[in-house]
Amino acid sequence: MTITLRQLAEQARSASRQLANLSTARKNEVLLACAEKIRENTEPILSANQNDLESADRLRSQGKLSDSSIQRLKLNVMKIEQMAKNFENVAALPDPVGQLQLATRLDAGLDLHRISCPIGVLLVIFESRPEVVVQISALTIKSGNAVILKGGKEASESNACLFGILDQVLEKFADLPDGTVSLLQSREAVSEIVQQNDCLNLIIPRGSNALVQHIQQHSRVPVLAHADGICHVYWDQSASFGKAMEIIIDAKTEYPAVCNAMETLLIHDQIPESEIRQILTNLQEAGVELRVCSLIMKKFGSELNGLIQVSEQDWATEYTDLILSVRLLSSLDEAIGHINKYGSGHTDAIITEDRSIAEQFMDQVDAANVFWNASTRFADGFRYGFGAEVGVSTCRTHARGPVGLDGLVIYKYKLYGSGQGVARYHEGGRQYIHQPLSRLN
Amino acid sequence: MTITLRQLAEQARSASRQLANLSTARKNEVLLACAEKIRENTEPILSANQNDLESADRLRSQGKLSDSSIQRLKLNVMKIEQMAKNFENVAALPDPVGQLQLATRLDAGLDLHRISCPIGVLLVIFESRPEVVVQISALTIKSGNAVILKGGKEASESNACLFGILDQVLEKFADLPDGTVSLLQSREAVSEIVQQNDCLNLIIPRGSNALVQHIQQHSRVPVLAHADGICHVYWDQSASFGKAMEIIIDAKTEYPAVCNAMETLLIHDQIPESEIRQILTNLQEAGVELRVCSLIMKKFGSELNGLIQVSEQDWATEYTDLILSVRLLSSLDEAIGHINKYGSGHTDAIITEDRSIAEQFMDQVDAANVFWNASTRFADGFRYGFGAEVGVSTCRTHARGPVGLDGLVIYKYKLYGSGQGVARYHEGGRQYIHQPLSRLN
Repeated sequence: MTITLRQLAEQARSASRQLANLSTARKNEVLLACAEKIRENTEPILSANQNDLESADRLRSQGKLSDSSIQRLKLNVMKIEQMAKNFENVAALPDPVGQLQLATRLDAGLDLHRISCPIGVLLVIFESRPEVVVQISALTIKSGNAVILKGGKEASESNACLFGILDQVLEKFADLPDGTVSLLQSREAVSEIVQQNDCLNLIIPRGSNALVQHIQQHSRVPVLAHADGICHVYWDQSASFGKAMEIIIDAKTEYPAVCNAMETLLIHDQIPESEIRQILTNLQEAGVELRVCSLIMKKFGSELNGLIQVSEQDWATEYTDLILSVRLLSSLDEAIGHINKYGSGHTDAIITEDRSIAEQFMDQVDAANVFWNASTRFADGFRYGFGAEVGVSTCRTHARGPVGLDGLVIYKYKLYGSGQGVARYHEGGRQYIHQPLSRLN
Repeated sequence: MTITLRQLAEQARSASRQLANLSTARKNEVLLACAEKIRENTEPILSANQNDLESADRLRSQGKLSDSSIQRLKLNVMKIEQMAKNFENVAALPDPVGQLQLATRLDAGLDLHRISCPIGVLLVIFESRPEVVVQISALTIKSGNAVILKGGKEASESNACLFGILDQVLEKFADLPDGTVSLLQSREAVSEIVQQNDCLNLIIPRGSNALVQHIQQHSRVPVLAHADGICHVYWDQSASFGKAMEIIIDAKTEYPAVCNAMETLLIHDQIPESEIRQILTNLQEAGVELRVCSLIMKKFGSELNGLIQVSEQDWATEYTDLILSVRLLSSLDEAIGHINKYGSGHTDAIITEDRSIAEQFMDQVDAANVFWNASTRFADGFRYGFGAEVGVSTCRTHARGPVGLDGLVIYKYKLYGSGQGVARYHEGGRQYIHQPLSRLN
């Protein structure tokens, strides 16, 4: 039986009300059952993935798909075991729902509690990696949200297979309603589903800046996402050379296609030329194209081959490739100014041995993640210890940086009274006491 | 010197970066100076307000402004003293910025901190009450945000006078940049300012549902607001009659024009007719027009004058007036179903002596504020002990219910490393420890 997108959205809305009150034990039971079912179905998953890979290969030979997309699409036994483990890891995390965040006695017999609760219905749009189906479902089940997933076309068979497996598990639990997890496959469906403002509470588009902007323009539902990831490393004059080398190479070359890779290197002009030369050389040896400011060009243009003059546009570009903008500047303030002007508020790092310089950088750089002596690549939910992430946010409201379970809840206020109206507290009447309650009941 | 709206937005953005790093002591000093200056200027404020009142009076005689709008517009010595106190109260609240929310040791020499920080630039749009200039400025200064205020036309002289006083104070503090607080007066300016997506971080429209929807349709900036306030009281069969009487009368009649007033009363059909009759009679005596379901009409239509048959549309209407929809139903589930179908997720209350029924109601009703044996009118930042509120949110992300200082901050992640790249943690390398840190430094 096919249902309309409107019905699908309403089903998710209705499911979300039931999911909000599932016990922690019950949610964990579901997650562990999913882990087991994924392991049992390793073969069918690989076979569905093989179909996707064959179609992808045809697209690649026509030049319509990149090698790195195919790498992201490809599953293997180890990745499937990781998916199963992902469910187990999320089951082991504390339940983000039902946490008492605030308790205040407004008056005798009038207690206010603030309790975390699920957001409701999420729409998550993602591209080629099929593992995302599993990662997001695990997080939404644990946080008591209903979710509508929309995967990339190139992973459609893998996604359908994974979704089918989860759906079989969910069907066995009578208290998990239809609409707990849904999968959309057609791209056209997205334009229609984002219009269901009254049923959707949050959209998380994981993908290109163009996708994020398209959603923001076509929907009134709040969007949690990162636009660009223009991450900077500022190499201060007070830096240790060894640390600079490890961090700069790691931030640029370890995985250049991702949003937390470095796009711009800012170098203090008091650093010895020999040190700068060595790091630029090592970057070039790792295959990095260097787009440099005129000061760098003047100093090193004759001895290092292939330096390119950077353009104004480059400073604001997320390459997601082995390309790096490089600028020489003469102060911490100039570095902070550059980052706040051209950055995207994602992740920016400083390399310095001076704590006060590091603190100034971390306080004044306006970004979700500000690092001292560590690679920008650490900006990630797994590395932060969140178990998994739904994405990285450069928004300034709700959740910022890598978003784990904490970002999938909101709260409600519960007031426990004994018959009061507010008129009792009018001028000359009773007074509010607003006493914080540390212990409850 | 006049500046363009674009320049104003850029000035606020730039100011926000400086404000983010003001010390608590400095912010409190500014707030106390504002309190003093407001008190000193009681006469000029009253005189500006008098000009607004005279214009308003002309509009009222033409039928263009209601009596209640004029009441909200009118200032007096006591209200001005309240404004001064408001600054002092907010100065006394804890600083919401710089709070350590999370600390995790990812590995030896690699510590992650999550620290609260301001959102950035807020745009707050409000209607006739001039006190709002003061309440919002106090909250934004304390939370380190820059704010652009847009007040109602009918309060333009009062708002300009209050803003001028604050501006004089802010100018005396050299570390408070231009753009800390700005005031827009023309309505046309709103359409242009909401387009400055790159400078604004959050819009808080306090006003009609139409205003909120207009903003949502014309801006890509996140919006924090309540749409309608369709608040319910469910009078369960297990209720104490005395509590029911106080709560129902208070929720409907104490201040019917506000968003947390009751719009619909749901009554369990096992409650004695004599009790229902008495409460309906008391509501009518307080001037409330009753729009009732057919069951109520059948039971009481002949003895109570003026009952009106309720329509489907009424259940979804925020009257903000002495009008009440009334429905008789036969179970808690039916009441929860009605509220989740017609409510606006603002505030809903149950009257019952049975704790388990109350808990079920509070868990299953999908609203920002769910109350047991208390009037819906308690849903308010002052009553909750937040010192003040920027508004009430029925959003499901960022902040919900009455929004105080807590809702005006987000956080950033600071990672303190010692030279690490992520490559160290690849398969077979180092392992993350993810140890929660309870004490720091």
